[in-house]
Amino acid sequence: MGLIVQKYGGSSVADAQSIKRVAKRIAEARRAGDDVVVVVSAMGDTTDELIDLANDITPLPPSREMDILLTAGERISMSLLAMAIANLGVDAQSFTGQQAGVITDDVHGRARILDVKATRIREVLDAGSVAIVAGFQGVTEHTNDVTTLGRGGSDTTAVALAAGLDADVCEIYTDVDGVFTADPRIVPTARKLDRITYEEMLDMAASGAKVLMLRCVEYARRTQVPIHVRSSFSGHTGTLVTDEPLDREGEGQMEQPIIAGVAHDRSEAKITLIGVADVPGSAARVFEVVAAAGVNIDMIVQNVSAAQTGLTDISFTLPAEDGKKATAALREAQETLGHAELQYDDAIGKVSLVGAGMKSHPGISAKLFGALRDAGINIEMISTSEIRVSVVTRADQLDDAVRAIHSAFGLDSADGEAVVYGGSGR
Amino acid sequence: MGLIVQKYGGSSVADAQSIKRVAKRIAEARRAGDDVVVVVSAMGDTTDELIDLANDITPLPPSREMDILLTAGERISMSLLAMAIANLGVDAQSFTGQQAGVITDDVHGRARILDVKATRIREVLDAGSVAIVAGFQGVTEHTNDVTTLGRGGSDTTAVALAAGLDADVCEIYTDVDGVFTADPRIVPTARKLDRITYEEMLDMAASGAKVLMLRCVEYARRTQVPIHVRSSFSGHTGTLVTDEPLDREGEGQMEQPIIAGVAHDRSEAKITLIGVADVPGSAARVFEVVAAAGVNIDMIVQNVSAAQTGLTDISFTLPAEDGKKATAALREAQETLGHAELQYDDAIGKVSLVGAGMKSHPGISAKLFGALRDAGINIEMISTSEIRVSVVTRADQLDDAVRAIHSAFGLDSADGEAVVYGGSGR
Repeated sequence: MGLIVQKYGGSSVADAQSIKRVAKRIAEARRAGDDVVVVVSAMGDTTDELIDLANDITPLPPSREMDILLTAGERISMSLLAMAIANLGVDAQSFTGQQAGVITDDVHGRARILDVKATRIREVLDAGSVAIVAGFQGVTEHTNDVTTLGRGGSDTTAVALAAGLDADVCEIYTDVDGVFTADPRIVPTARKLDRITYEEMLDMAASGAKVLMLRCVEYARRTQVPIHVRSSFSGHTGTLVTDEPLDREGEGQMEQPIIAGVAHDRSEAKITLIGVADVPGSAARVFEVVAAAGVNIDMIVQNVSAAQTGLTDISFTLPAEDGKKATAALREAQETLGHAELQYDDAIGKVSLVGAGMKSHPGISAKLFGALRDAGINIEMISTSEIRVSVVTRADQLDDAVRAIHSAFGLDSADGEAVVYGGSGR
Repeated sequence: MGLIVQKYGGSSVADAQSIKRVAKRIAEARRAGDDVVVVVSAMGDTTDELIDLANDITPLPPSREMDILLTAGERISMSLLAMAIANLGVDAQSFTGQQAGVITDDVHGRARILDVKATRIREVLDAGSVAIVAGFQGVTEHTNDVTTLGRGGSDTTAVALAAGLDADVCEIYTDVDGVFTADPRIVPTARKLDRITYEEMLDMAASGAKVLMLRCVEYARRTQVPIHVRSSFSGHTGTLVTDEPLDREGEGQMEQPIIAGVAHDRSEAKITLIGVADVPGSAARVFEVVAAAGVNIDMIVQNVSAAQTGLTDISFTLPAEDGKKATAALREAQETLGHAELQYDDAIGKVSLVGAGMKSHPGISAKLFGALRDAGINIEMISTSEIRVSVVTRADQLDDAVRAIHSAFGLDSADGEAVVYGGSGR
């Protein structure tokens, strides 16, 4: 008997049939004796439809009103899910973020959870009911205004509730069987991981793995909530995200694997400033301009200054969706920055090898570069951290790069079973 | 400079275009200098669509969850309306029933408003903003649960807010120009009333006039909030519901008209029990059975006992939608009640003449019966109150009855202009 928080994304509750299927799974968990809290996203495309409605009204909807609008989505899914569970003879009640005590700051559209006051949820559990909680939303402490948490918000709600309720596990249900050593759509021989550390999962998420959002993993690491990523379509055990060592009966203590997996990201673009003065502070000025435009950058490369000229080139990657903003800001600042030319390139891809074991195993980077060379893939940029090596390639070589690295590090499964892979909703 | 509460029904905010049109009207009212609170229903058919969704999940949705589901509708309309007003350069914020301080009892699906704690709304008005409030919904005081008010709920929200804020007037916007002396679809010569008392409006609503719901008028009478029923499609002055005497400049004091109007109702059915023992208490037993089935009755007629037999017939009318429940209960109790036969008839109609002036004008009933006789219409049941005479006819004679009575009491307008008439949303 424990306390489980389960989170279901929009694709798991896309229609009445899906909601009934999920309800059955929840009722089974409750009947097995556990206390169950369920966090649910809006049904299927509801959120996008609501955004379309707002766009029909005004190009610039006030963010406070946008949040009120969007939270209608979870209101619908959570009440329908509670009805479906009740219909199976298991008592269930649904709660908005406000009712569930999810307190946030007042940054509408991307609020941060400050606290979870789950008194009401605890009461409902003590009374033997299942509590359904709206994901993605909260309420400001003083003004009682509705907020939304932004992308990946429902996962974060689930982890925050699990932390607030001291749950045994936070199960994130998605449309894949867990976290894989690579995207199985690119690498058919990718294997499901039984376990991954928070640190590795953070680097996988930051490097483009979409199964869990970065901030949700951050919250889980900070609060030490174990996350179980699993499929809502099968009964299989998924991937456990935790720092606890595996200690299964009869298995003993397993050695930490060196590599967790290979992540890739197609969403970035590269900006190169050619002919920047190679004097102290010139790179700082460039990135001040970019930061002032509200753009986060990822990798940076600065070439060695060419002899005589005293000029250098600076390249960096950024989310392609911020490309316009960044190039506009840099063009406007061209006179100050003094660069001769600006190149924008969104036909790039990034592949990252992630593994906590790298720290104690030298030669990982060399092996990776060798694998790419053998596959005829050109490396445009390199960035490394303690547990990650990332490389930028041409976009049309990215899939080959992922496969080459996956093979080189012995991650391929023997049978190469086919699996379905997709996004995890928001 | 005053404080106006405006209420817009679902048909007034059915799509983006309608929302923008309503926003324009609201912005104009605000720019004219008044403080404006707007109560809004769910867009068009949203509520019915949400009910369909629930029915896809379970035939018996828990009422608490049904209320959470349905309140998503106003959440969408109110935030979109606030966005549309903001887009016109007028500051607007939307509030749920809970945020607006609409406190109700905990009878889900048909909660009653207990109190309005409009502190937050007052603050928003003081800051110069328009406050948009979700109609039809409230929150329980202690459990913070979401409730809905049932049919006509948004009108009641508007009146309750107007009372709580001590507003100068509560404007109910609908798709007709006001309250008419009869339904213009039946009586093309019906006239719009400039003014009607609460008592008359109550009797009109209770007799089938759909422009305002009974409970909204009751609330307004109790709190003495003047209601202005008017069209959201025109700028015309509508009908003022108030007990204050008309005191327009230059007009002086007008005499109270004898008759307000003619209402009709097609939603009732008639049950007749034949051969009930004519002894004390037998009628009481019949209506105890009907009441125990949760059915409200309207008119009752008991015939004089036939000589020798000691048996009588009892007829009563009830909402046709409760017909099955009532007949089942009466059939089950047949042995106790002792009636020989039960007749059920839903091909009836009810026409009512309403006017506060009736109290002091004898002969109204006689004139009405004469008009029906002259039109060849048979009267099946009669019921009268101080300010109302109601008559049951065959359903297919109802329209003729309405027209005959409307003419007989001189209510026809001279020109007989065509007007559009319809429901007022919820």
